[in-house]
Amino acid sequence: MQFFSDNTAPVHPAIWQALAAADGVDSAYDGDALSQALDARFSELFEREVAVVWSSTGTSANALALALLCPPYGGILAHDEAHIVVDECGAVELATGGARLLTCPGDGAKLNVAELQARIARLGKAVHHTKPFAVSIANATEYGLIYRPDEVAAIGAFCREHGLSLHMDGARFANALVRLNATPADLSWRAGVDALSFGFTKNGAMNAEALILFDPARADEAKRRRKRAGHLLSKGRYIAAQLHAMLEGDLWLVNARTANEAAVPLAQAAGDRLIHPAEANMLFVRFSPAEAAHLRAQGFGFHDAGPGAARLVTSWHHRVEDVAPFAAAIAAL
Amino acid sequence: MQFFSDNTAPVHPAIWQALAAADGVDSAYDGDALSQALDARFSELFEREVAVVWSSTGTSANALALALLCPPYGGILAHDEAHIVVDECGAVELATGGARLLTCPGDGAKLNVAELQARIARLGKAVHHTKPFAVSIANATEYGLIYRPDEVAAIGAFCREHGLSLHMDGARFANALVRLNATPADLSWRAGVDALSFGFTKNGAMNAEALILFDPARADEAKRRRKRAGHLLSKGRYIAAQLHAMLEGDLWLVNARTANEAAVPLAQAAGDRLIHPAEANMLFVRFSPAEAAHLRAQGFGFHDAGPGAARLVTSWHHRVEDVAPFAAAIAAL
Amino acid sequence: MQFFSDNTAPVHPAIWQALAAADGVDSAYDGDALSQALDARFSELFEREVAVVWSSTGTSANALALALLCPPYGGILAHDEAHIVVDECGAVELATGGARLLTCPGDGAKLNVAELQARIARLGKAVHHTKPFAVSIANATEYGLIYRPDEVAAIGAFCREHGLSLHMDGARFANALVRLNATPADLSWRAGVDALSFGFTKNGAMNAEALILFDPARADEAKRRRKRAGHLLSKGRYIAAQLHAMLEGDLWLVNARTANEAAVPLAQAAGDRLIHPAEANMLFVRFSPAEAAHLRAQGFGFHDAGPGAARLVTSWHHRVEDVAPFAAAIAAL
Amino acid sequence: MQFFSDNTAPVHPAIWQALAAADGVDSAYDGDALSQALDARFSELFEREVAVVWSSTGTSANALALALLCPPYGGILAHDEAHIVVDECGAVELATGGARLLTCPGDGAKLNVAELQARIARLGKAVHHTKPFAVSIANATEYGLIYRPDEVAAIGAFCREHGLSLHMDGARFANALVRLNATPADLSWRAGVDALSFGFTKNGAMNAEALILFDPARADEAKRRRKRAGHLLSKGRYIAAQLHAMLEGDLWLVNARTANEAAVPLAQAAGDRLIHPAEANMLFVRFSPAEAAHLRAQGFGFHDAGPGAARLVTSWHHRVEDVAPFAAAIAAL
Repeated sequence: MQFFSDNTAPVHPAIWQALAAADGVDSAYDGDALSQALDARFSELFEREVAVVWSSTGTSANALALALLCPPYGGILAHDEAHIVVDECGAVELATGGARLLTCPGDGAKLNVAELQARIARLGKAVHHTKPFAVSIANATEYGLIYRPDEVAAIGAFCREHGLSLHMDGARFANALVRLNATPADLSWRAGVDALSFGFTKNGAMNAEALILFDPARADEAKRRRKRAGHLLSKGRYIAAQLHAMLEGDLWLVNARTANEAAVPLAQAAGDRLIHPAEANMLFVRFSPAEAAHLRAQGFGFHDAGPGAARLVTSWHHRVEDVAPFAAAIAAL
Repeated sequence: MQFFSDNTAPVHPAIWQALAAADGVDSAYDGDALSQALDARFSELFEREVAVVWSSTGTSANALALALLCPPYGGILAHDEAHIVVDECGAVELATGGARLLTCPGDGAKLNVAELQARIARLGKAVHHTKPFAVSIANATEYGLIYRPDEVAAIGAFCREHGLSLHMDGARFANALVRLNATPADLSWRAGVDALSFGFTKNGAMNAEALILFDPARADEAKRRRKRAGHLLSKGRYIAAQLHAMLEGDLWLVNARTANEAAVPLAQAAGDRLIHPAEANMLFVRFSPAEAAHLRAQGFGFHDAGPGAARLVTSWHHRVEDVAPFAAAIAAL
Repeated sequence: MQFFSDNTAPVHPAIWQALAAADGVDSAYDGDALSQALDARFSELFEREVAVVWSSTGTSANALALALLCPPYGGILAHDEAHIVVDECGAVELATGGARLLTCPGDGAKLNVAELQARIARLGKAVHHTKPFAVSIANATEYGLIYRPDEVAAIGAFCREHGLSLHMDGARFANALVRLNATPADLSWRAGVDALSFGFTKNGAMNAEALILFDPARADEAKRRRKRAGHLLSKGRYIAAQLHAMLEGDLWLVNARTANEAAVPLAQAAGDRLIHPAEANMLFVRFSPAEAAHLRAQGFGFHDAGPGAARLVTSWHHRVEDVAPFAAAIAAL
Repeated sequence: MQFFSDNTAPVHPAIWQALAAADGVDSAYDGDALSQALDARFSELFEREVAVVWSSTGTSANALALALLCPPYGGILAHDEAHIVVDECGAVELATGGARLLTCPGDGAKLNVAELQARIARLGKAVHHTKPFAVSIANATEYGLIYRPDEVAAIGAFCREHGLSLHMDGARFANALVRLNATPADLSWRAGVDALSFGFTKNGAMNAEALILFDPARADEAKRRRKRAGHLLSKGRYIAAQLHAMLEGDLWLVNARTANEAAVPLAQAAGDRLIHPAEANMLFVRFSPAEAAHLRAQGFGFHDAGPGAARLVTSWHHRVEDVAPFAAAIAAL
């Protein structure tokens, strides 16, 4: 049983059905009815008018969002260990035309207002120095921690105070949300988020992500930049179909809940081994090299996360009963 | 019956089967076995060692190829009406960091050595002027014309003489090839092509293209640039599976032949109305506005292509017998 | 006697005096009093509030202006033979992040509304196609032709109609202006110009150009982009001093008048040999290779301008009496 | 008396003489004899063949050097507080097309191999992560510290081991060199430096810097990139003349020695107040706000350098006897 990543999970049956249902002759690019219906569908979900720009990867959604929110000569405040900082090969720099990532520390890859405040205080105001234009946070974070609505709102207030825009990398937005007693709106625009990279691929889709713009007036620019980046698929209906299927019957929440719940027995088994609190579907656990080898010898797959540490990720595809053997093996260490 | 574009065709059943067969838990990105097998599979097809970089769109493959072949301060010779020039919203400029498209005229969007020669003769050699580094041709062209191997080889020789690299936009490479008594190698590297954007989406895939690098040493850079452009899909196995399926049993050739053959009765019916010779699966036909309206009223769909002209595109999904009514309607004008 | 370029002329004595007067200990960058006084000085000249951004080259001023007026995914309408198109090695692409130059023909490198209209009519509106954001014209043009205020105003009106900004490359703005019964305001913002690259180097300065922004609110962005481009000189007072000296006593107009007048006897001698009307300080003249060689053998220096053509440029440094021998030699051909 | 920056110093009399001597009619851009003689002149100085690319600012020289040494998808290792990191508004990102600055700590803005080693150890090798291509160090550093030849050589060896290029920002290369018993070659290419931004503006020139390429084969690309960045001045002879004058009679060393020596009495007066060792012409000194105000009230000008700290910079223009009153005032605190 693998716990490498939620990217390694298969495609959910409902997605297959939606893809098959979308098959046939239809308009190219995003001229099909499914693509055209996305703005309305997500506006309903977010309880306000939004514009949706689909793409096939979270990296493209993040980079596009930040290209909208920050000019080439500007800076983007983000965590030292954010995905956009360490795992996207400079996608932000390409999309923005060379904006600077201004990074901050924080436990569990979580930003906070005090660190943001300290970071901008170190930036001179003169033209010699990079002027910040945006903050980007990931919810859940790279370490599986969750920003609560009030935490996002505090960062949102900081942004408004300093004239910054706020982007949320929501590759695991669903995993964050199901953990909270909150709505999508509470965790995004009501807390000050301007653009949300809303991820579905890790959560059961094949290759579908939605950039949500809470200012729909930015959609034309976004769609031009998407085309320019090569992300306007010619058979876009097969992307849009996935997004509709994920929202249908709240599949996105069902899947995220499954993923998070699968992590619970692992977290309980790990106990004091946990490096960060277990909040979503990723656990960081202390295993000695011998322990890790022992577990792997039993057929459990997972990535190292630095010396003496491992990352365990559960997905919509893990059922609690499938996870039990791994939990038992951890408990038995 | 629609003749808007080969992008409007559905996904071929063999692709659906391959996608289903690829489903399951597997390595993320391009770490899966299907992705890893592509170099060998395409090396066999091209009768030499090649590196394959998959992506989801032809625009991304073209832009990536040209970013490898031309520095930011260089120029790329291409046709005035090439797809990369008029239909990709500056994707080449984004990917290359601002290289210049140096355009040339030519009937049917086809470049020839005389025009290329004339174009570079107008470029000064000093640092003030853009220095050309590459030529990009599309085979088939935007107007459905085909470069024969000797025509490509003549451009290839021109490139070698002037120190230029040669890129082929092969969104319809299959449609070109099946029209000729030639191998993939003949129409690409043997004729001097350095990088080929080998298209499959228009030819029956869902969203799969292959950038073929005839210098495999460029693969590492290509893959870093792909990631940076947001084109490394996290569930890449569903792209790789499509490529394997297209090559299996020469489906790519079968489909292209079907598409080209479907164009034959339309071309015959069009007769003198043809603006360009009918060589692949696209026809440009003179219809008066009244004629176009008359055809549309009968349920035939197609795009205008300037005043008094229409573009008719056939695909793997058109059978000759399906096309007959449209041919008859054209003949009856 | 040389007629290669107005760039080959020496530095005017008044500039030397101003540079010497500026010498001493002062604030770095543009913190000095001379730099700080430029906005007011040029606002007076232009009869409205403007912001001035100095730099050392016309290329940097042009590129900076266009980076302000056009986003990376946009297009800039310009003449096929404009300096920004053929002589700046892609500076616009670097500064804008890859915007596209959309070029138009026109006699003597002069744009007109009909050609602009035709050019944008060929651009599709969809996201696949480059959306124009600006027009750039050069006054005087690369062939020494002059746009009258009403000609600029017609282009300005076209720009307003289509939501475009208007840039003027005024490397030879002075040479254009002194030929007309018009004020700097008439030939710029009153005719719809948003940003003017106001050249002084060719007109007697050492290395000083002024980008004039008729919307001073853009100055902060412009100055950040200038710094980022490496164009904020650390001893900026030596640039600012030149600009003040050029305006003092209307030296810029005096010098331009001298340059233009020096061209008059050459134009008269050339007569029917003139390829374009003689309007400023550049003449394009038909000389056979033998004639050109004959003149060069007599010590007259000038550049070829294509087969059977030569470019003759006069500068502030040419006095009419110095030019007489060349005029006589041309007349004697 | 001002100690704000060496940029606030006037232009040295020998520079004025050289500028006047260069006046007259000459070839534009870098076609003049002075520009053409630079390669030979600097090759002599560096005891090997080098190519010289002049420009007007240190920022442009640094950015150009790094654009040569690092592709857009690569990373550049530099100190957290390097000038290229904090004081150039993202010039490296613009010139490179969005390369990433990968920063390291180190006392006094000085890099060392251990920190470099630690930094690259944290970078993954996969395409997701930025691949380093170059290291950039400043000698002297932003805090006035000096790398000895063996320290540079250690970093050079690290670079060779890891396939990285080495750039030196030598805005104060002269100030570093005169402190050492070493030649320009010892402190640059013999220690592994590939490209040196050799500064002269702070050291008595008006606006002249030299990018020294120890691989002359890179000159063509460098000159195209310089043009594209708007840094090819049209009257380049006035830049080249300054460089020749600085080398004539070792003026560059004389001036740097003067600057460094002027710092000595200030360092002695500061004593324990020094935050970093006094090695070149910049001192960082602990002054309470009251002390700083007291000194300023006596007419001494200097910048703050964070809370309770000041930066004092001496230049070629400060004579030891001019500095004495400031030293006395500091001693009297």
